[in-house]
Formats: sequence, C-alpha cells, structure tokens
Amino acid sequence: MKKALQEAEMAFSKGEIPVGAVIVVADKVIASSHNLTELLNDVTAHAEMQSITAAANFLGGKYLKDCTLYVTLEPCQMCAGALYWSQISKIVFGARDEQRGFMNMGTKLHPKTTVVSGVMANEAADLMKRFFLERRK
Amino acid sequence: MKKALQEAEMAFSKGEIPVGAVIVVADKVIASSHNLTELLNDVTAHAEMQSITAAANFLGGKYLKDCTLYVTLEPCQMCAGALYWSQISKIVFGARDEQRGFMNMGTKLHPKTTVVSGVMANEAADLMKRFFLERRK
Repeated sequence: MKKALQEAEMAFSKGEIPVGAVIVVADKVIASSHNLTELLNDVTAHAEMQSITAAANFLGGKYLKDCTLYVTLEPCQMCAGALYWSQISKIVFGARDEQRGFMNMGTKLHPKTTVVSGVMANEAADLMKRFFLERRK
Repeated sequence: MKKALQEAEMAFSKGEIPVGAVIVVADKVIASSHNLTELLNDVTAHAEMQSITAAANFLGGKYLKDCTLYVTLEPCQMCAGALYWSQISKIVFGARDEQRGFMNMGTKLHPKTTVVSGVMANEAADLMKRFFLERRK
C-alpha cells in the first residue's frame, strides 16, 4: 500500500485526483499506476484500470486469479466491474468513497474475490483532502 | 446500429464475443470498435470502453455530453460505470444481457443519460447465439 500511496502522490503532482494502484502476485509487484484521467482526457484512465491492463499484459493472460490489488481509494463502479471480469483474488483498499465507491453503488465483484478495507486509509484520505483544498484555492 | 452490428461481425470473425459499438455526435460517427478482450488479453477491452476512449480523444475532452452510444449488447457493470463518468447523453443498445447487463446488476448511470433498448435486438442476439453455438462445436 505504501507503493500505491507513492503512485497517488505522483498523480497529485500532475494535478490528477490522487489515486494510486499496485498489483502484486507472489509478493512481486507486476503493475503500478496512478490516475491519469486529465492528462489522457479519458474517464477510463483510473489507476485500477491501468493496473489491470498492465498486470494481464505482464502475465500473458487476462485473468488475475492469484493477484492482489492495492488501491488507495475504494474502487468505483467501472473499476469494480473490471475487477469482476478479472476474477482477481483480493482487493485491498485504503479510504472509503461513500459517494462513488462500489460498495454503496452496489457493484458486484466476482464470488472468488475477497476485500480488505481501511489499510492506510488516513494517509489516502488526507491526500485527497489536500488535493481538493488546493484545487479550491 | 447497423454499423455497430458490422463491428460485432468483425469481432465474430476474430473469435471474439461479437459485440460492436459506435459513438455518434451530430449525426457523425466519431468512434467505432468491437470487443477485443481475447486478442489483447485484457478484460477491459470491451467495445464500449474502446469507443469511449476514442470518442474522447476525437473530441479533445473526456466528457461525451452530446454523444449517443450505439451498442449491440446491453453494457456490463464496467462499461456502464465508464458511461456514468462520461456523462454521455444517450445509450442505445440491442439485445438484453439478463445475467451480466448493467440493468439487472444495478449499475447507476449519470442522471442526464437516457437509455433506449431493443434496437435490432434480434440481429444482435442471433449473432451471439451463433457465436456460442460454433464455440461449443
């Protein structure tokens, strides 16, 4: 999660909503990315989406059955929907997203996927707060 | 929708689940694509996702507020989640996807988005049936 937070800080420094993601398999990082929706002018360029594509590319197969995603913010409907298709083993996220997160939106994950929340949540939430405070100035 | 069906047929000929999508603004096609999840080894390579990215790229902005998406099959959670972020004006789809479509899955669209279903639904459903029949052989 520390590495995902570093990715989120990279997004912050580019003026992107600071979300970072990392995918790990057998203790090895195989993908890491941060939100690039502004730079790429693309609503699909969330950190998770990029990491899913990169991890599948690394593995040479589209399923991420033995992988764990670490992401600083609770995934949205789109990212949770992509994670559903990927059959990922585990999702570990930091801060909750009450408004746009998949839990309150009711998005279904794959039955084999387990979820852990709240890991370094304060650090992730602080980064988000700092971002929106600076943007309001 | 005819053009979206042509895209779906292109997917079929490549051994991909036959779904095609087209995005139109002011009667002009600005993006067209078909499912490429197998070829790209990427669960995120649905027809709709590619068209959303291509249309935003064409427009030079990430929002598709004045656009209409034509897609042969009801979008899934991931694609509906991406369409939510895009604030697309209208979604026109062909065949229902009772199992994995966004309607039964409960994915929320943007409040400004309208949905029309059942356009050339038989043609789209026939193509899907033919694909899965051939794959079972």
